[in-house]
Amino acid sequence: MGRWEPDARGRLAKAALELYDRHGYEQTTVAEIAEAAGVTERTFFRHYADKREVLFDGSQLLQARMLAAVHDAPAATAPLEVLAGALDAAADVLQERRSFAARRQRVIASHPELRSRELMKLALLSDAIAAGLRERGVPGPAAGLVAETGIGVFKVAFERWLDDPSEPQLGEVMRATLDDLRAVTGTVR
Amino acid sequence: MGRWEPDARGRLAKAALELYDRHGYEQTTVAEIAEAAGVTERTFFRHYADKREVLFDGSQLLQARMLAAVHDAPAATAPLEVLAGALDAAADVLQERRSFAARRQRVIASHPELRSRELMKLALLSDAIAAGLRERGVPGPAAGLVAETGIGVFKVAFERWLDDPSEPQLGEVMRATLDDLRAVTGTVR
Repeated sequence: MGRWEPDARGRLAKAALELYDRHGYEQTTVAEIAEAAGVTERTFFRHYADKREVLFDGSQLLQARMLAAVHDAPAATAPLEVLAGALDAAADVLQERRSFAARRQRVIASHPELRSRELMKLALLSDAIAAGLRERGVPGPAAGLVAETGIGVFKVAFERWLDDPSEPQLGEVMRATLDDLRAVTGTVR
Repeated sequence: MGRWEPDARGRLAKAALELYDRHGYEQTTVAEIAEAAGVTERTFFRHYADKREVLFDGSQLLQARMLAAVHDAPAATAPLEVLAGALDAAADVLQERRSFAARRQRVIASHPELRSRELMKLALLSDAIAAGLRERGVPGPAAGLVAETGIGVFKVAFERWLDDPSEPQLGEVMRATLDDLRAVTGTVR
């Protein structure tokens, strides 16, 4: 992480994703990723535990932003509106990374081990959001339900966003998906 | 699976769960499971691919029953009611297995590899329910959303059921959780 390796971390992530997408996740070695990023294997392992972790570098930031939104919502905010704020925060993180996200999604879908890891990250995110809601005074069972629902909305909206060639704003797709949920559960607005 | 091994499969599952719960999943060997069930290791491997799969023997039945409910619901049924029927079907499968389910849940929560596997099974179940809803004519995006929501309700209700010492009917807990979802999304009833 010295001055002779400006943004080695970012270059490694980009190189890895490109190699995984082009040649397959299994087929790509750490040596190849390091070479493509112009660093040594040792540098790779200073930044990432293994070649899987390169794909999950953004999870921590996403979770931190969503939890901050849950924490910072005004006291009287209804749980579903707190959730909507957390989804907005997620959209802000992801909006500028659409092509990266699309490529990453393709790689993850191609390999059960990666899909498994992604599901685990989302389950932990759901647990963390539920804990954040409980801290706000939302009763435990409702907190768990809102958090699980939120992850469901997130997954569906995220896929809609990537699939839509008109490249809409992710925040709008999130809000529209939340409205669809209200419609499907029979809400009057 | 000869006549000299009546219900070897069931006895292996019971023995495995008991050993995992008592001594830990990592610590238990296939040899120990086979011995506790009174069969050979070879018999174990005739029934299960590995010691993890023993814990997921019920997933297929659960999925089959839920999908049958989705398929068999009358044509005019609203998507959320189709989902409610699938949750009823799941409850029917699980109701008589509460103590087995509680023990299994404890074992799965204790080990990331098992939790991961459980999450993957639920994700595949969600995909299958979404496909079943699409076959009924529910538009793709709504089908995915209802399926994801359904899995969320299932997970929350299942935990509520196991945590409630009054041992309520799982079907009632599922319906109550679905009502909570309606309440939280702001429905009038």
